[in-house]
Amino acid sequence: VANSLLLPEIRQMISENDRQGLSQIMNELHPASIAEFAEGLDAEEVWTLLSHGSIPRQAEVFPFFSQEKERELIEGAGNFRMSKLLEAMPHDDRVDLLKRCDQDTVDELLPLIAKADREDIRRLYSYPEQSVGSVMTSDYATLPEEIRAQDAISHLRQVAPHRETIYYIYVIDDERRLIGFISLQGLILAKPDVAVRDLMRSEVISLRAELDQEEAARMLAKFDLIALPVVDNQNRILGIVTHDDLVDVLEQEVTEDFHLSAAVGPLTEGYRRSSIWYLYRKRVSWLVILVFVNLVSSGVIAAFEETLQAAIALAFFLPLLIDSGGNTGSQAATLIVRALATNEIQLSTWAKILGREFLVGLLLGLTMAGASFLLGTARGGVEVGLIVGLSMLCIVVFTNLIGVLLPFILTRLRMDPAVASSPLITTIADASGLFLYFSIATWIITGWGKIG
Amino acid sequence: VANSLLLPEIRQMISENDRQGLSQIMNELHPASIAEFAEGLDAEEVWTLLSHGSIPRQAEVFPFFSQEKERELIEGAGNFRMSKLLEAMPHDDRVDLLKRCDQDTVDELLPLIAKADREDIRRLYSYPEQSVGSVMTSDYATLPEEIRAQDAISHLRQVAPHRETIYYIYVIDDERRLIGFISLQGLILAKPDVAVRDLMRSEVISLRAELDQEEAARMLAKFDLIALPVVDNQNRILGIVTHDDLVDVLEQEVTEDFHLSAAVGPLTEGYRRSSIWYLYRKRVSWLVILVFVNLVSSGVIAAFEETLQAAIALAFFLPLLIDSGGNTGSQAATLIVRALATNEIQLSTWAKILGREFLVGLLLGLTMAGASFLLGTARGGVEVGLIVGLSMLCIVVFTNLIGVLLPFILTRLRMDPAVASSPLITTIADASGLFLYFSIATWIITGWGKIG
Repeated sequence: VANSLLLPEIRQMISENDRQGLSQIMNELHPASIAEFAEGLDAEEVWTLLSHGSIPRQAEVFPFFSQEKERELIEGAGNFRMSKLLEAMPHDDRVDLLKRCDQDTVDELLPLIAKADREDIRRLYSYPEQSVGSVMTSDYATLPEEIRAQDAISHLRQVAPHRETIYYIYVIDDERRLIGFISLQGLILAKPDVAVRDLMRSEVISLRAELDQEEAARMLAKFDLIALPVVDNQNRILGIVTHDDLVDVLEQEVTEDFHLSAAVGPLTEGYRRSSIWYLYRKRVSWLVILVFVNLVSSGVIAAFEETLQAAIALAFFLPLLIDSGGNTGSQAATLIVRALATNEIQLSTWAKILGREFLVGLLLGLTMAGASFLLGTARGGVEVGLIVGLSMLCIVVFTNLIGVLLPFILTRLRMDPAVASSPLITTIADASGLFLYFSIATWIITGWGKIG
Repeated sequence: VANSLLLPEIRQMISENDRQGLSQIMNELHPASIAEFAEGLDAEEVWTLLSHGSIPRQAEVFPFFSQEKERELIEGAGNFRMSKLLEAMPHDDRVDLLKRCDQDTVDELLPLIAKADREDIRRLYSYPEQSVGSVMTSDYATLPEEIRAQDAISHLRQVAPHRETIYYIYVIDDERRLIGFISLQGLILAKPDVAVRDLMRSEVISLRAELDQEEAARMLAKFDLIALPVVDNQNRILGIVTHDDLVDVLEQEVTEDFHLSAAVGPLTEGYRRSSIWYLYRKRVSWLVILVFVNLVSSGVIAAFEETLQAAIALAFFLPLLIDSGGNTGSQAATLIVRALATNEIQLSTWAKILGREFLVGLLLGLTMAGASFLLGTARGGVEVGLIVGLSMLCIVVFTNLIGVLLPFILTRLRMDPAVASSPLITTIADASGLFLYFSIATWIITGWGKIG
């Protein structure tokens, strides 16, 4: 039905209370597709549509709604209905939802939720933002080590409807310590009588709940797993993190890095949902800070004002030289920032990389110097050509090294290296570029003067 | 064993031929961990270690090797051994491996591989780079619709060792047309006698093999799935793409966007493995192109040389104004580029976004103009303050709009909008910034002159 179905048709089904059509939509479509259609309906219509699916099915759809739609729906729901839905929802998604509700709504809903679920919510709620704990879920499947394969499968059959995944099952001892791991695929392949103990892998890759969520995402990507278990300092299992949540984490972190690299503060609600005023606030602080950093460049110009006035032709090459510095620096910084983010290079290798990049910078500098020498000579004779070419060489080599070093330094200072890219490096490159250019110009003009 | 194990100990085990220790490593550790250890061993040592696991186990480890290690291992392997390994490897990984081998090696290996596998390799080989076909695998599980749940499970038990995943099973008709989909979780929960036909979901989200791999990754992320089926134009199933491959795709695409946004050409082998010469080549072309774009800025300066010489104090604010323009433009461009990449905004909404960003730019411009007016007045009196403030307002508003529009225009021209960020926008911002600044300065100085 999905491809041939249009929003007006669903609207009509709802207004005509077409039971068959609506329950087909609720039961056949992917939850994300249902949620997508629902974005075009008002809250009451969505509730009518949802009511044609079972509570567990409704709970599957809910996490796919946008934040605005979610808010509308909660307001129009009635607390009792909402509490039943929360009980049926994936454990991580319901905590995310409650975190986005205002405190009054949470205070009204929580007492209506079954005690075990309420405690589970409180526990997951307590992990700090950005930690592995904040994205983990507690609806995972476990088995004791002595159970036989066929009994394990029967057990999983019973608990499956209440588990986010039963594809990976974690084997625990009496004190919930993680002692092994088995996949459903492995369990199905096994002889019915074999104990889980003899089937499981005892080398389990696990995460600590306090770890940064980005680390977890990188681990999952590295080991090609669907889920990873989360343990406390006693190796007791606390939850699991699943591939779908960690793909979202990776996307978020990447967007944050992109924004930081353009000197924009992280947008918590995404670009489309940010208000004009919010976008202004996230951008203005860096812009103003960089104005003050730029005063250094202005200072350099002021110091060399006489040189500039005496040889106003030098101004012609100003944008060329300082921009090339900024561009080179921002290339280098971006390469390093990204290689650090993907763990391709480590902080400890900075000296080796600096050496390598010095050579890259030298090659770039020589090429650019050649081009600038020709341009300079064409414009103002060999003397100008020499000034511009030599300045370009120094500027490119220098800003390239700054671009390489800055991300390492920022990481060392426990700041996000992404801010090293573009605007910050451009501004630093400008100041140093101006200084190099005017110094070299003064030096050559004076020297030439003596010779002549 | 993993955490307590060090490379020298594995080396010792290999030299002493410690069968028990080595087979424990091969059978207990995660393939990615084994491959990580192997990076520190020479090819012969790795082969000794591998030989303590079964062929299917060796085939699981192989895809985790780095490209250099892979090459060394293939050279030292002997073609017969390598062909057995290829037969056992996941179908997508072995094609990737062969793509990285030189033609001679491929010509030697292919005839040794079983006919069915060889044909499968040829088929997967034929899809163009970057397409969904190039990342899909053909070792997926299918079922006919009439089979009963318990028979389906027995069937899966038989084929599981040769399938990349059996967690999602695709239901096909006699002509291999995709008619439904069921999860292993669903199958296990079902009553043994029910036919798959009555259990499956008939609304299957599928992909076409020609689609861009990035689209596939976004679909998988959107629907929170482990795998997606790939079909031809007759809806016949060709393969599946799995979550682990698509996480890699997302990472690659993001790295490419980061590099493009800093005017670096895409690095096919990653930063660490790129040679100095290769890095130089990937960076130099944009740098040189931007030098020529910068000549526009130089031209503007040349045109206003007299104004500048007459009022050399104006030079003081040059870096401040043109950098602020560049920074504003690069903020705007990056926000739009990223929002387009994550499908947060669509191309068609450009006019609405331009309107919104005009207001953001106006707010930013007014703030920056205020600051610049004060700086200008402090430095050279109210006249200079007015010139600098007004220039700043115009520059920020204008470059912000350019930053918003450029990614839309590039997308429309079927170019990657990521190149709009940073260096390109900075260079454009400079030229326009200089023009605005000098025009306003000339206008105010002349006007003031008349008044005075």
